[in-house]
Amino acid sequence: MARVYNFSAGPSMLFEQVLKTAQSELMEYGSSGQSVMEMSHRSSTFDAIIKDTEARLRRVLSIPDNYKVGFIQGGASTQFDMVPLNLMTTGQADYLVTGNFSNRAAKEAAKFGKVNIVANTKDINYTAIPDVDAIQYTPGASYVHICENNTIFGTRFTKVPQVEGVPLVSDMSSCILSRPTDVSKYGLIYFGVQKNVAPAGMAIAIVREDLLGHAAQNVPSMLNYTTLIEADSMYNTPPCWCIYMTGLTLKYIEEEIGGLAEMEKRNNAKAKVLYDYLDSQEFFKNPVNKPDRSIMNVTFTSPDPDTDKLFCAKAAEAGFVNLKGHRLVGGMRASIYNAMPAEGVAKLVQFMEDFVKQYG
Amino acid sequence: MARVYNFSAGPSMLFEQVLKTAQSELMEYGSSGQSVMEMSHRSSTFDAIIKDTEARLRRVLSIPDNYKVGFIQGGASTQFDMVPLNLMTTGQADYLVTGNFSNRAAKEAAKFGKVNIVANTKDINYTAIPDVDAIQYTPGASYVHICENNTIFGTRFTKVPQVEGVPLVSDMSSCILSRPTDVSKYGLIYFGVQKNVAPAGMAIAIVREDLLGHAAQNVPSMLNYTTLIEADSMYNTPPCWCIYMTGLTLKYIEEEIGGLAEMEKRNNAKAKVLYDYLDSQEFFKNPVNKPDRSIMNVTFTSPDPDTDKLFCAKAAEAGFVNLKGHRLVGGMRASIYNAMPAEGVAKLVQFMEDFVKQYG
Repeated sequence: MARVYNFSAGPSMLFEQVLKTAQSELMEYGSSGQSVMEMSHRSSTFDAIIKDTEARLRRVLSIPDNYKVGFIQGGASTQFDMVPLNLMTTGQADYLVTGNFSNRAAKEAAKFGKVNIVANTKDINYTAIPDVDAIQYTPGASYVHICENNTIFGTRFTKVPQVEGVPLVSDMSSCILSRPTDVSKYGLIYFGVQKNVAPAGMAIAIVREDLLGHAAQNVPSMLNYTTLIEADSMYNTPPCWCIYMTGLTLKYIEEEIGGLAEMEKRNNAKAKVLYDYLDSQEFFKNPVNKPDRSIMNVTFTSPDPDTDKLFCAKAAEAGFVNLKGHRLVGGMRASIYNAMPAEGVAKLVQFMEDFVKQYG
Repeated sequence: MARVYNFSAGPSMLFEQVLKTAQSELMEYGSSGQSVMEMSHRSSTFDAIIKDTEARLRRVLSIPDNYKVGFIQGGASTQFDMVPLNLMTTGQADYLVTGNFSNRAAKEAAKFGKVNIVANTKDINYTAIPDVDAIQYTPGASYVHICENNTIFGTRFTKVPQVEGVPLVSDMSSCILSRPTDVSKYGLIYFGVQKNVAPAGMAIAIVREDLLGHAAQNVPSMLNYTTLIEADSMYNTPPCWCIYMTGLTLKYIEEEIGGLAEMEKRNNAKAKVLYDYLDSQEFFKNPVNKPDRSIMNVTFTSPDPDTDKLFCAKAAEAGFVNLKGHRLVGGMRASIYNAMPAEGVAKLVQFMEDFVKQYG
């Protein structure tokens, strides 16, 4: 069938051109006589791939020289462990709970030290982001942790906490590369690649170098940033295919889109089409505090759960797939990451209008 | 250029037919309108892929019903941590050190309890496997750990330790699926997939179910077999592409090769060609105790390191790549995993004969 518009929260759409390149190179990369999937990670060919991927990431995100990059298996969930195991040097850390994943990160960190929940928006069902300047941060906290875009609830931080002397750690899994980011505001950025970058199977950590080297001796080697980063992500065999695919996406963003400023412009425009429609009628509702609306994940509900179900089924028939909201919240969610084309969103809105005419 | 014969120790060759299928399905899997790389791991399409992959693994390896299967990120190196964190319930375990990876596994386990090195072949440079029946195992050890095929040194266990009441844990990264395996002899089998199965980025654990459920509360969730396996390897987003590729390889072994008995026959025949040649002349030497020779990794040296270097360079020019031995041992190593065709080995031997004629 034709390529569908895939609104999955992750894994999710990749740029069609990136997939085409991967397909054309699958049997043989360059003139190597091998697939990237077969290549020794110690070969000069793969060495060039991983170095080029890191260099592109550094250029696209303007990563300062005093930050190190690690390609790490296990997704963001493994980062929930690695962050406290490596950075919780004072025995405590501050967590802002603004959704499911920040909650999981906080619970996981509590295995390794004292977790201070300095903000929690559960009582408003995570529909808004707290005012980061009004929060009482803990003196002596090792770091402040946020999940910058909340995939399930469709919110995002427009301003991030900045606490004097306390590094900010941000899970950017569902917003990385969606807009320019001032990396210098962060001590550590991490993200699973499966939403906006590459197939599932890897996280990338961007760590300010003064935060390295403080893990306890008995931390598992595979959970030690310093061990992994000092070995240039080759402490063990890295997920070579994910790294290669990450490189292809970065190349596309850099050379075809023109970088993150343009990427943000396109993402803002896509989100505006959908939110403008949602605000223009009464059938579908978006519950999120307007200034905190995510430009990556747009949630909405119809008048009742049965109609939600009907909507998702009819949408799938029409080629708009994975619009069902997360089981924690129900309703619908349209994840419109970088690779979702503008016409996918425009056509979805057209479909929603038609649906309302027929069933509204 | 033409497809090379890739003798890499891992990542390594995949079956050409598997790569061709992956290429043909890359833009769209079935009639899903999506690539497997873009697919929600919660979709019914991917659910069928992961279930089929596990079912095939169970059939091909004849895994008994009281064993669970987990698809886990982080390779064998992460298993070095997971094994003691989940199974070292008595505070100690026995390790047989027969090479680099069993040594790393033992060192990592020592972070979490007492490691008894009950055998160590370092003094003979790991060129032989100890007599497993002559070893003094430790009463009260939680498990006995081996690395069943030693990639770097080219040895393998032909008989595995069987200690009454003490589960055997085996790292089978470089021999899995190379021959039939009696899974019931093991408490836990694990292997990184990047040598004999799929692209790098995943390990598979096969765990006897009575060994689950004993990890301490503060073990990282991502290192807890029970957490991962109870969630059907979906505790977090799994490495979907690796799982899909694993399924393709298993399908090929099951349907095209005809299963592991036939696979072993072919592997034995390939290894015999190379070892017979090595034993027939004096220029190249294999240092391994004959009964312990690996059928997956064949090591050899020429008379001196300069000639080794020349050999590897000339071989690469002729389309035999990655023959350089591991940096720990030097010399050469031909990794002849399942996907190395018989003609690759025959042609390598022909090349070696020609090399000796010219430079011997």
